[in-house]
Amino acid sequence: MRLRRIPGTKEALGHFPDLVIGEPSRYYGSWNQFFGNEHPIHLELGMGKGKFLHLLSQAHPHLNFLGMEFREEMVYKAVERFKGRHDHVGFLWANVDKILEFFAPGEISRIYLNFSDPWPKKRHEKRRLTHGNFLKKYQIILSPGGEIHLKTDNQDFFEFSLNAFADGGFFLKNITFDLHHSNFPGNMMTEYEERYSPVMPIYRCEAKLTTP
Amino acid sequence: MRLRRIPGTKEALGHFPDLVIGEPSRYYGSWNQFFGNEHPIHLELGMGKGKFLHLLSQAHPHLNFLGMEFREEMVYKAVERFKGRHDHVGFLWANVDKILEFFAPGEISRIYLNFSDPWPKKRHEKRRLTHGNFLKKYQIILSPGGEIHLKTDNQDFFEFSLNAFADGGFFLKNITFDLHHSNFPGNMMTEYEERYSPVMPIYRCEAKLTTP
Repeated sequence: MRLRRIPGTKEALGHFPDLVIGEPSRYYGSWNQFFGNEHPIHLELGMGKGKFLHLLSQAHPHLNFLGMEFREEMVYKAVERFKGRHDHVGFLWANVDKILEFFAPGEISRIYLNFSDPWPKKRHEKRRLTHGNFLKKYQIILSPGGEIHLKTDNQDFFEFSLNAFADGGFFLKNITFDLHHSNFPGNMMTEYEERYSPVMPIYRCEAKLTTP
Repeated sequence: MRLRRIPGTKEALGHFPDLVIGEPSRYYGSWNQFFGNEHPIHLELGMGKGKFLHLLSQAHPHLNFLGMEFREEMVYKAVERFKGRHDHVGFLWANVDKILEFFAPGEISRIYLNFSDPWPKKRHEKRRLTHGNFLKKYQIILSPGGEIHLKTDNQDFFEFSLNAFADGGFFLKNITFDLHHSNFPGNMMTEYEERYSPVMPIYRCEAKLTTP
């Protein structure tokens, strides 16, 4: 999804230093100090406008949440949504390529991938956020028993991702081909999901680092 | 699929003792003696009329193949297909429930499940050949690194099976949601598949016992 370019957005993001974390690499290995507690840290990659993260962080006050997003207009929308209630939430305005610069091994308990760009063309395969190259990075920053939770409406991307997880040595679980007609409890809907789940099936799975 | 009952079929099966193995439990732990070689043994559960097993056994003369089927009319059709060329093939006219009586731990290298009955009703779940209770039995008879190869045209059964494999501690690989539009090489088509693959997608996956 593209948002209209809003002049001055980049500058505006600098006005919320508690929420939009400048130079995230300075917290490498010390994110729990950033949050001031030892609670697990959940990271959404490609948080968009932050709807999912907002619902999740409200439901789980004893977890820490980080959202990563490189489109500044999206980050700005997320900032507007979160203003005034962000003690256990932070945003990284950055590209997923950089996660190894931001997070130390084992620092993240869970990664969320919601409706990531499927990059359908074969020649763009490496850009998919479940490509083996990305999974290797996730494996490093995830703690033992850490999980990746994925949702998508794109069947080809789902198939690609299941194979990538399996090939990467992850254990799969809770695979569903139609989340909104399944028994899965407590689903938090993204904006995209609210719009499209009535007309198309949503695929979901979890991938776990260690033995089941 | 049901076949018309043919009177005398049961008796007829007794006329092909080299192909239709009477009292399979007497070969428990000694199937390689039955075949007279040490080649790996592949087992199809629910072989139907034997088309898949026929193609596969022709393509792989250095593997041993066993087909299991409890509907005698199906076994009879398979016998007709295989007559005269069965040195590395045998049929078990029996129910899958009994496999632990027929095979010793580690005796089977690969199991094929092709278009198994999806038993769509929740109350029949335990009859599905990928139910956890069956998987536990397969785990026993499979050799280290052994695999289960599954094909189905039923999305719900496929979803159920993926989760059952994952929950059972199997590693998944080569998952495809549309076999006939995938790059998978060397697919052998069952009769059912020949009929239905032009009009509906065929799902396929492999489940492996040990680390990938």
